[in-house]
Amino acid sequence: MTIAHLPTDEKAEKPGTGPGVPSIIETRESEVRGYCRGWPTTFDTAQGAWITDTSGRKFLDFFAGAGSLNYGHNNPILKEALIDYIARDGITHGLDMATVAKKEFLETFEDVILKPRKLDYKVQFPGPTGTNSVEAALKLARKATGREAIINFTNAFHGMTLGALSVTGNSMKRAGAGIPLVHATPMPYDNYFGGVTEDFQWFERVLDDSGSGLNRPAAVIVETVQGEGGVNVARPEWLAALAELCARRDILLIVDDVQMGCGRTGPFFSFEIAGITPDIVTVSKSISGYGLPMALTLFKPELDIWAPGEHNGTFRGNNPAFVTSKVALDTYWSNNALELDTIRKGQKIAENFDNLAKKYEGEVHGRGRGMVQGLVFDKPELASKACEIAFGNGLLAETSGPSDEVVKLLPPLTLTDDELDQGLAILADATEQVLS
Amino acid sequence: MTIAHLPTDEKAEKPGTGPGVPSIIETRESEVRGYCRGWPTTFDTAQGAWITDTSGRKFLDFFAGAGSLNYGHNNPILKEALIDYIARDGITHGLDMATVAKKEFLETFEDVILKPRKLDYKVQFPGPTGTNSVEAALKLARKATGREAIINFTNAFHGMTLGALSVTGNSMKRAGAGIPLVHATPMPYDNYFGGVTEDFQWFERVLDDSGSGLNRPAAVIVETVQGEGGVNVARPEWLAALAELCARRDILLIVDDVQMGCGRTGPFFSFEIAGITPDIVTVSKSISGYGLPMALTLFKPELDIWAPGEHNGTFRGNNPAFVTSKVALDTYWSNNALELDTIRKGQKIAENFDNLAKKYEGEVHGRGRGMVQGLVFDKPELASKACEIAFGNGLLAETSGPSDEVVKLLPPLTLTDDELDQGLAILADATEQVLS
Amino acid sequence: MTIAHLPTDEKAEKPGTGPGVPSIIETRESEVRGYCRGWPTTFDTAQGAWITDTSGRKFLDFFAGAGSLNYGHNNPILKEALIDYIARDGITHGLDMATVAKKEFLETFEDVILKPRKLDYKVQFPGPTGTNSVEAALKLARKATGREAIINFTNAFHGMTLGALSVTGNSMKRAGAGIPLVHATPMPYDNYFGGVTEDFQWFERVLDDSGSGLNRPAAVIVETVQGEGGVNVARPEWLAALAELCARRDILLIVDDVQMGCGRTGPFFSFEIAGITPDIVTVSKSISGYGLPMALTLFKPELDIWAPGEHNGTFRGNNPAFVTSKVALDTYWSNNALELDTIRKGQKIAENFDNLAKKYEGEVHGRGRGMVQGLVFDKPELASKACEIAFGNGLLAETSGPSDEVVKLLPPLTLTDDELDQGLAILADATEQVLS
Amino acid sequence: MTIAHLPTDEKAEKPGTGPGVPSIIETRESEVRGYCRGWPTTFDTAQGAWITDTSGRKFLDFFAGAGSLNYGHNNPILKEALIDYIARDGITHGLDMATVAKKEFLETFEDVILKPRKLDYKVQFPGPTGTNSVEAALKLARKATGREAIINFTNAFHGMTLGALSVTGNSMKRAGAGIPLVHATPMPYDNYFGGVTEDFQWFERVLDDSGSGLNRPAAVIVETVQGEGGVNVARPEWLAALAELCARRDILLIVDDVQMGCGRTGPFFSFEIAGITPDIVTVSKSISGYGLPMALTLFKPELDIWAPGEHNGTFRGNNPAFVTSKVALDTYWSNNALELDTIRKGQKIAENFDNLAKKYEGEVHGRGRGMVQGLVFDKPELASKACEIAFGNGLLAETSGPSDEVVKLLPPLTLTDDELDQGLAILADATEQVLS
Repeated sequence: MTIAHLPTDEKAEKPGTGPGVPSIIETRESEVRGYCRGWPTTFDTAQGAWITDTSGRKFLDFFAGAGSLNYGHNNPILKEALIDYIARDGITHGLDMATVAKKEFLETFEDVILKPRKLDYKVQFPGPTGTNSVEAALKLARKATGREAIINFTNAFHGMTLGALSVTGNSMKRAGAGIPLVHATPMPYDNYFGGVTEDFQWFERVLDDSGSGLNRPAAVIVETVQGEGGVNVARPEWLAALAELCARRDILLIVDDVQMGCGRTGPFFSFEIAGITPDIVTVSKSISGYGLPMALTLFKPELDIWAPGEHNGTFRGNNPAFVTSKVALDTYWSNNALELDTIRKGQKIAENFDNLAKKYEGEVHGRGRGMVQGLVFDKPELASKACEIAFGNGLLAETSGPSDEVVKLLPPLTLTDDELDQGLAILADATEQVLS
Repeated sequence: MTIAHLPTDEKAEKPGTGPGVPSIIETRESEVRGYCRGWPTTFDTAQGAWITDTSGRKFLDFFAGAGSLNYGHNNPILKEALIDYIARDGITHGLDMATVAKKEFLETFEDVILKPRKLDYKVQFPGPTGTNSVEAALKLARKATGREAIINFTNAFHGMTLGALSVTGNSMKRAGAGIPLVHATPMPYDNYFGGVTEDFQWFERVLDDSGSGLNRPAAVIVETVQGEGGVNVARPEWLAALAELCARRDILLIVDDVQMGCGRTGPFFSFEIAGITPDIVTVSKSISGYGLPMALTLFKPELDIWAPGEHNGTFRGNNPAFVTSKVALDTYWSNNALELDTIRKGQKIAENFDNLAKKYEGEVHGRGRGMVQGLVFDKPELASKACEIAFGNGLLAETSGPSDEVVKLLPPLTLTDDELDQGLAILADATEQVLS
Repeated sequence: MTIAHLPTDEKAEKPGTGPGVPSIIETRESEVRGYCRGWPTTFDTAQGAWITDTSGRKFLDFFAGAGSLNYGHNNPILKEALIDYIARDGITHGLDMATVAKKEFLETFEDVILKPRKLDYKVQFPGPTGTNSVEAALKLARKATGREAIINFTNAFHGMTLGALSVTGNSMKRAGAGIPLVHATPMPYDNYFGGVTEDFQWFERVLDDSGSGLNRPAAVIVETVQGEGGVNVARPEWLAALAELCARRDILLIVDDVQMGCGRTGPFFSFEIAGITPDIVTVSKSISGYGLPMALTLFKPELDIWAPGEHNGTFRGNNPAFVTSKVALDTYWSNNALELDTIRKGQKIAENFDNLAKKYEGEVHGRGRGMVQGLVFDKPELASKACEIAFGNGLLAETSGPSDEVVKLLPPLTLTDDELDQGLAILADATEQVLS
Repeated sequence: MTIAHLPTDEKAEKPGTGPGVPSIIETRESEVRGYCRGWPTTFDTAQGAWITDTSGRKFLDFFAGAGSLNYGHNNPILKEALIDYIARDGITHGLDMATVAKKEFLETFEDVILKPRKLDYKVQFPGPTGTNSVEAALKLARKATGREAIINFTNAFHGMTLGALSVTGNSMKRAGAGIPLVHATPMPYDNYFGGVTEDFQWFERVLDDSGSGLNRPAAVIVETVQGEGGVNVARPEWLAALAELCARRDILLIVDDVQMGCGRTGPFFSFEIAGITPDIVTVSKSISGYGLPMALTLFKPELDIWAPGEHNGTFRGNNPAFVTSKVALDTYWSNNALELDTIRKGQKIAENFDNLAKKYEGEVHGRGRGMVQGLVFDKPELASKACEIAFGNGLLAETSGPSDEVVKLLPPLTLTDDELDQGLAILADATEQVLS
């Protein structure tokens, strides 16, 4: 397949000559806006792996709502359930009242997700965003242990509200806080020293040394794969050792599965591969399945020491999201087909990247797990350039990493092989252009 | 009208004999759940001012999603637009990409809300919840001034994430943080001393005294009416004096209009009554009009010093909410009919409460503005009791205030006079029961 | 008596024509130096109330080491004991080893100070400075209560190390911290509103309001008279009400008696006048009696929960200071003669200031207790000017208060009436000059 | 030489049968007292390396005021100058007024210490203790850089006030703070991983990684040898690399020379060996030479951005200490005799320890620099036992290190070789007893 045959090509306009960004956005929306700068067009509709702008130009979306659209845009099965629910005046806004939609979600979550995995988590609805779930997790960990300190990892990303931002690595985002961010100490993520240094050498040493000056932590918060941090992949044995280390020292382990959960790496929870049971798990992004705001904080029953209403939030009961979530779980997680397919497609991407790495030795290489795969450029600025070219050729992909040196692919898990091939071809083509 | 004639009565079951709360919620959802405890039934559908449980029992909802449903449940005008949008595969999840839905929302917001009020605010989409909007506001205020301290008010409520929680008064919720909440200093809200002490006596004195020990604040954050704090109403002249005080000392004024905005007190922004232009305004809850998660942070153009992407959030582009929001603005804010009607109905509630106050002198009294009205019980525990009885008779109303001593009414602005009368009759009846 | 008859006059040189400040101090000592700027000469020897510069010019010292020389410079009784001790090779540096000098100090402190006042305080030697004593007090209060917040008062001064600085009011000094100073909330000191507002109205209200947003304090720290803050005098009944308020709410009361203790206001402890027993008391400055570094932290036995060595300090066992302290206690506190004399002389100063206030109505007024007395100038800049003139005429006196508007007198308690008259005459003369 | 011949033996009483600790200390002094527990006797006089208790028993003092008595107890040269000064009524307490004693100290410090070393430091008198000097250093570093974060090292000890405690490692002492200690991040001290890991691997990596989550530090604070931390010795090349690393990244380097300065390791400043010029240096302990409280904060002229009086302290002008300090500098630092002698004696101790290490292979080993030398016991509890036996045989030595596993020797630099031999013999004997 060549780029020339892409369906997007028919109507493709050169970047900058399309509909562009509406002037109201440029004049009225804050300077904080970001994606509309890199993808300077106006999007209108979307379906599956495709998103269409107002000129009718179609783009393959390998960004998928930053991992919020694992089942594709406007997934028809969920869409039907959603429209039905709205049409029959099902409750939209429910705070934490008991509703049919919540009941059915919880029953399905228990039957389809928790029980088969022998997980006995209590479920909190902390507000419908990942950052809110992280805030609830940190609050609970501190309350349960009576300690304040949190260990995070280099290049972690956990959110923008003050608690979550404190455990996030990116210095530009940290600077936005306007106050010193305290109570968090970064530790080296897996492979931070290129394999030279023994795992947890530093972390264990300071934990065990009563004179190290490290405040004893309430919890460790970790992503199994760091998406925003540059598609850094923690090995299962590293995660297992981390869990064991935490358990031995009575430190709670929080897995932030906001981006990597809901099947992104293969299994529903990304930590399953390591055979561990975190004390607390944050879930958001693709949990509703339809891109609707929804989040969960899961924790072991013995940690459920919240007082009623101690943490609340206006939109914690987003019932339409419960509806689509329930259907998504039923549809995609009643068996392991999606998991296997995700692993298979992930390998396809990895092989594709390996081929690029061979072709452009020393200039690019790939890394990832399941369907989060990064193409790392040795010259950081080329990653953005490749994405820009890809956009011009009909592919949405974003960069990540501390120097934006990684093209991060998060395609819908449900895209077709043909769509996957098309997207990879566009990226390969863009890579060639920037490296030649 | 007597309670006997209420439509809810036909199918009414005694409290506790209805469907109750599903066992999955009691076993699987965290202890943090709240409203399902006070209203122990399972809700299914809703329309306008009415919400129906699985037994078919109907309740008048004078709680309205804690102020998120100013136009009623599943407002048919918005519903139609929403279903159309979903049906035609309009983009659901858009981060901060430029989309048709966002463009149309911004244009409408500019034309219908900002321009007529001569407000030149930049618009940030900070994540779809009120607490996220508050976090963005605090971050921006600190970044813009280079100061860390914030002044909040007694009995303030601004949210549950760490930054917002720091400026929230409720001690139970503060305790949930698990770390000392710092950088905020409370000042007395209007009428905190029953009118005895001059306004801002303490605040101005410590600001002007270089030896007072008060860290110079970046901003003051204030609600024009404190909903969670007990329906405490700031006088327009107090708000104007506060704005003047801030301006004179180069302190930013943040009005948190999450609950009181979108017409709850009459005008679209609750601060309009004071003739002030805050530096930063937070908006959420009813801004989508349909109970969908959405939030805005508004600020003067000179404060728009964000770097691109410095504050972000996965669900900041909840496009279905933009769609319903646009329609809601067009429908309800193109003229001042709703505003006038809200004021009129608010007076009706206030008169009703005044009658109760006369009847039960020294035992209850009312306070409020527009359609946020509180009935304050001298014996705090009676407020909850009244709400419990009201629930049994088909009315949802919640308590607020530091001792939960206030029955807080937040009916949909769009309910009929007949519905309003029904609800007030149920509450009057409940009041009579607890006071006799 | 006229200025012309002052013994200092004989050799007096005009300011600026004396020896001046040595150039090594101007080139080598940090810009942080202060007093040598206002008193631009080089001092050499001192005796009693007199300090002499290298030109032989003598100054009456009504500053007395900022309250560290209550018994005058180089008090001969203490001097003899000190030289004897040094001559016989008594231990100089003793950390917290048991030494004869410490034993004798403790026995005397118990017999002469604690027992007669029925005070059962444990004694900590926290390091030999006031700020260290305050740090120990705050640490202990937090450890004992498990709370972090401290209440301080407007215009408080407690020291320059980070903990003490957090509870200090002066904004210039606070700015020196370089980090946000948190965990402390200022409350209005007695008479902060000129008598208009009821005592503790604000403090009690926010303590009792669970929604006020005030973190529940571990302790209140208070000076009975604020020296640095401008000679603000708390009434005994205010102090008693504060103690009662703290006791009722299980908040520890710390009296910082570093400057006002050791007889400055009359009784040994300045809080005796209020009939209260603080939970923790800090003592330093004049405790050694000879101007040697020494400090104590006193607390009720039930608060003595320190682990051995949990707070330490290299110079906490400054044994020569124990020697002079013991002799000072024996000499001046075995009966109430000094106390009565201090009160008498204090009244003399107060009357003198009242006369000035009558003479220059609306331009100056006096306030103080015992032998800490302030002359408050309506035009703040005149206070410094008066001190400058007084220095030219042979009197050392410093200014204090947020605008340096107060001439603060802290003469040695042991000066003669004649010396007191001389000093007051110089100040009266200077006052006349600046006001005419 | 055998223990039997020690002069202390004549009057030696068995531990526990001597004078013991006075009961007033056990009943009245706080539980925080420490050294009087390990050395349960009552000391009275001291001279040179010897300290004598009330029973007349003499002890060799290899502890020397925790490094405050580098020239021995009550050094006769200094003593004479001190008594002369006191006798002639030289100013005792001088705040920061210009005095003859201060002038002469500064001139001598410039001539004898700064100029020969080509150091152009401004001198601050921050209050007379090491912790106060550290507080001043941290404040200045933060003020000068506008950053809050400080890097400290594992097992650092910098003092007990809140700022200094934040950068101290010992967890027991940190717990005394009663609030979370923030703004400091520990890094591994030299040889923390037994030589396995490359120097600064972790520190440089997180500094250079904009996504590491490390707040950019204002300063690094380091001891060249960690005394309290267990006599951990940083190699000169490590210190030089640290200085270079700081310079390259515009981070200030603070050397805390409170214990290791004033010749303890050989040269006057312990950092001279590394050929570096720190930005800020803290000096205290032996700077007065006589065990009198005194401290300096030194910094490069361009950092002298203090406002007058921005940091102050009652005892910052302890003039008798200036007098003894000047004489000590003149006496011991006008040539390099003491430095060479310290190195020679240090080697003697080191050889002695090496012999013990050979004799008791795997059970003890030595480490140190100059005359701070540690004997490390493989079984930590034996170090305290050895000190206890040594005390019984007339030697004062303390333990240090996170598990108190190190016998730390800090003899007076001026002791005789014979005295050194005696002390080492007692320790060797005690070591033999605990290891056999």
